[in-house]
Amino acid sequence: MQDLDKVFYPRSIAIIGASPDTKSQGNGYVAAHQEHNFSGNIYPVHPKAEYVRGIKTYKSILDIPNDVDYVISNVPNFSALELVHQSAVKNVKVIQFFTARFSETGIPEMAELENELLIQAEKYGIRIIGPNCMGVYHPENGMAFRLGMPVEKGNVGFFSQSGGNSIEFVTEGHARGLSFSKGISYGNALDLNEVDFINYLMNDEETSVIAAYIEGVRNGKNFLSSLRKATKIKPVVILKGGRTQAGSRAVNSHTASLAGSKEIWNAIEKQTGVILANNMDELVDLCVTFSFCNPTYGKNVGVVGGGGGRSVASADECEEAGLNVIPFPQSIIDEFRKIDPKISEWISNPADGSILGGSKLNMKMILSTINQHPEFNLIIGNIGEHFPLDQLHGIETVNNTAKNYIEIANSRLKPMALVLGHGVSQFDWQRNGLQEIREKIKENKVAVFPSVYRAARSLSIAVNYWNRVKI
Amino acid sequence: MQDLDKVFYPRSIAIIGASPDTKSQGNGYVAAHQEHNFSGNIYPVHPKAEYVRGIKTYKSILDIPNDVDYVISNVPNFSALELVHQSAVKNVKVIQFFTARFSETGIPEMAELENELLIQAEKYGIRIIGPNCMGVYHPENGMAFRLGMPVEKGNVGFFSQSGGNSIEFVTEGHARGLSFSKGISYGNALDLNEVDFINYLMNDEETSVIAAYIEGVRNGKNFLSSLRKATKIKPVVILKGGRTQAGSRAVNSHTASLAGSKEIWNAIEKQTGVILANNMDELVDLCVTFSFCNPTYGKNVGVVGGGGGRSVASADECEEAGLNVIPFPQSIIDEFRKIDPKISEWISNPADGSILGGSKLNMKMILSTINQHPEFNLIIGNIGEHFPLDQLHGIETVNNTAKNYIEIANSRLKPMALVLGHGVSQFDWQRNGLQEIREKIKENKVAVFPSVYRAARSLSIAVNYWNRVKI
Repeated sequence: MQDLDKVFYPRSIAIIGASPDTKSQGNGYVAAHQEHNFSGNIYPVHPKAEYVRGIKTYKSILDIPNDVDYVISNVPNFSALELVHQSAVKNVKVIQFFTARFSETGIPEMAELENELLIQAEKYGIRIIGPNCMGVYHPENGMAFRLGMPVEKGNVGFFSQSGGNSIEFVTEGHARGLSFSKGISYGNALDLNEVDFINYLMNDEETSVIAAYIEGVRNGKNFLSSLRKATKIKPVVILKGGRTQAGSRAVNSHTASLAGSKEIWNAIEKQTGVILANNMDELVDLCVTFSFCNPTYGKNVGVVGGGGGRSVASADECEEAGLNVIPFPQSIIDEFRKIDPKISEWISNPADGSILGGSKLNMKMILSTINQHPEFNLIIGNIGEHFPLDQLHGIETVNNTAKNYIEIANSRLKPMALVLGHGVSQFDWQRNGLQEIREKIKENKVAVFPSVYRAARSLSIAVNYWNRVKI
Repeated sequence: MQDLDKVFYPRSIAIIGASPDTKSQGNGYVAAHQEHNFSGNIYPVHPKAEYVRGIKTYKSILDIPNDVDYVISNVPNFSALELVHQSAVKNVKVIQFFTARFSETGIPEMAELENELLIQAEKYGIRIIGPNCMGVYHPENGMAFRLGMPVEKGNVGFFSQSGGNSIEFVTEGHARGLSFSKGISYGNALDLNEVDFINYLMNDEETSVIAAYIEGVRNGKNFLSSLRKATKIKPVVILKGGRTQAGSRAVNSHTASLAGSKEIWNAIEKQTGVILANNMDELVDLCVTFSFCNPTYGKNVGVVGGGGGRSVASADECEEAGLNVIPFPQSIIDEFRKIDPKISEWISNPADGSILGGSKLNMKMILSTINQHPEFNLIIGNIGEHFPLDQLHGIETVNNTAKNYIEIANSRLKPMALVLGHGVSQFDWQRNGLQEIREKIKENKVAVFPSVYRAARSLSIAVNYWNRVKI
């Protein structure tokens, strides 16, 4: 058993400040654990309420009849210390403080109060998550910090100093097919911090990709040493907040961490093999790639679909991302010639779907040929939804294209990325039709990106990683 | 009257190869002009059909009882030359060839045939658009090349060597609130080309922003000279296809243009003041910025909304894009102190909305203060939809935030960009709710971006442009 198992596998949770007001965060914690069907006991605590969301509620943590493993604190900052003392009485192992307004306010008394929490908790052997954080998301054990977080468990483990960013990450990631093993929003990192989480997640069998949003590191030496180990076992992608001067200032009023300059983090990237994302989109893109694409070691990409202009733009974006858009090898041209001698000289990589009208060749054949040819390592398939969507039946066309691509992707011979736009249209039938297609792609665990350049960049970074850890 | 008026203001259009088959492109041209309520006569031409989409159809262009100003050709390549001869008889001024498979096939005979088209057309004084293109989109006069193109007219004029890319541009642009003055998909650029279009659009009063997708330039000297003039009058944003070797190869089989290297285009950017976009997203982002933001000459940005982590990430992304996320000037801090002395020291730029609970300050006040302060030039407002959307009533919260932001933006004191994600969610109520909010933003002509880094990059480029042309 790892040390942090008590964080992820508590048998009982007391939610302090669990108000009956459904808009309050305390109520939200109760609701989220109900929605996720938490395996143990939930004890809401509120000075007046008898029931919160149908669960018997206690006036104080001391009134709970049994021991409590885990406490979620929604009390105001000035009540936090008292809660630590009371928790000791109930044999609590972990307290998560949603409670905020400590060191991040910049007020010295609040920083002192925060430190006192740590001193007292250490005395009792209680570990602290936070303060100023959302806490733990662990679908396997039914733990979550909001309604609407995915209930299915998955492979992405994450830790984030920001609760908002962790919600954004889970929401945007899930919309792209990601599911999560374990997640921690850990705010000010007073006690449990990035080193603990990375050590845990690198050995966690449920986790195959580690993602993080970090503002500052408490113990640089331990962090580097853990990171070095972790990146050899599984990819670690970090979005670092506070790379610029203004970002560092913002970190100061957010989690009061020491941000560390961009140069330091670039050095960390080189030394440890961690992958730094520049923004939330890249963090999600990379987790999608590592979750749904098998390792490959070359960068020759076959690109199919879309019209002529899209093919040109795709070629540029792939090459600029470091992939090689190689011409078709002679053996492929020979194969195409057998099927359709007229068009075989004209078709190239990227393969422009719009010139195939009247030909005996079609996109699926081309895709399948690329998929089986040893000179290609990667595939990008443009679904190209813009062109067919001038009429209602266009959704059928897009659907068929997607189906064909998914079928080839499911061979799992080569990492394949599909490109499907966001479909932000004023027409309901377009939004809904594209959403159905998106869901099919997700069900089949195929990597999907909103643009070629995002797909290409992410695949290129992934191939670099796979080569680094190649045995 | 400019020379190209005959391209945009024909009084009659013959659509050759206008089949009754609603899936054919010929039929599509008829439908699109009907949908846009074309101001003149439409003459479908088909060897057998009596009516196409309810319009009397002629067996040949020669059977049309009146002169024809403009021809749209859907005939096969081997019939194109005959059509030129026939068009001369009908006093045609412009032929647009949707017809393809000429020089772009790489077959010498087809390139010769293409050249012969030009020789004959010149003899008759007929101008050619294309071949291998979609043609003209001109909402004011009811011209369009597909169903579903926006019918309202707007300010963005574009020309594109790719029909598919022009459809993608119009679709994605319109979803972000853009409308269009005039658009030309011009394919192989046999006759009318980028120089003609840029000369026309720079003097076109309906056009305030010029966008283009270009694969190759026919006459470099004229192009540079036109571009230099145009960028002094209005911003010109070009997505250049064929920047890489693979891209150039793809250009060759698409429009058979001479692509020109990346280095050459970087030099063109410096010499002429044109703005080069790296991909379709940037092309749309820049047109959104130039369409909805008034010129400003400084780069001090105030960023509001979202939680602490979002604020940190926003600060980094703005600074990395070249904007300055300045701390609040003392006069603003003083103003905040008067309203709420407790929180005034803690709130900073970017302004973290999540710390305002229980404060007398709110986001709208902060936004309004920034908007009126002379030290700020630009504003970015994070709508921050991820956090509230755990419950149905969350849409209300997002809606209220957007409403407040729009109200301030409508003062038009400073360029303001809103950030609202794509809302690609599996929940209908989230997709639809966010779409309604997006529509409201569009109606108010406020610039909206899917991420802070895209907003920041685009604003930064725009400020550079405005400074260049400052009088």
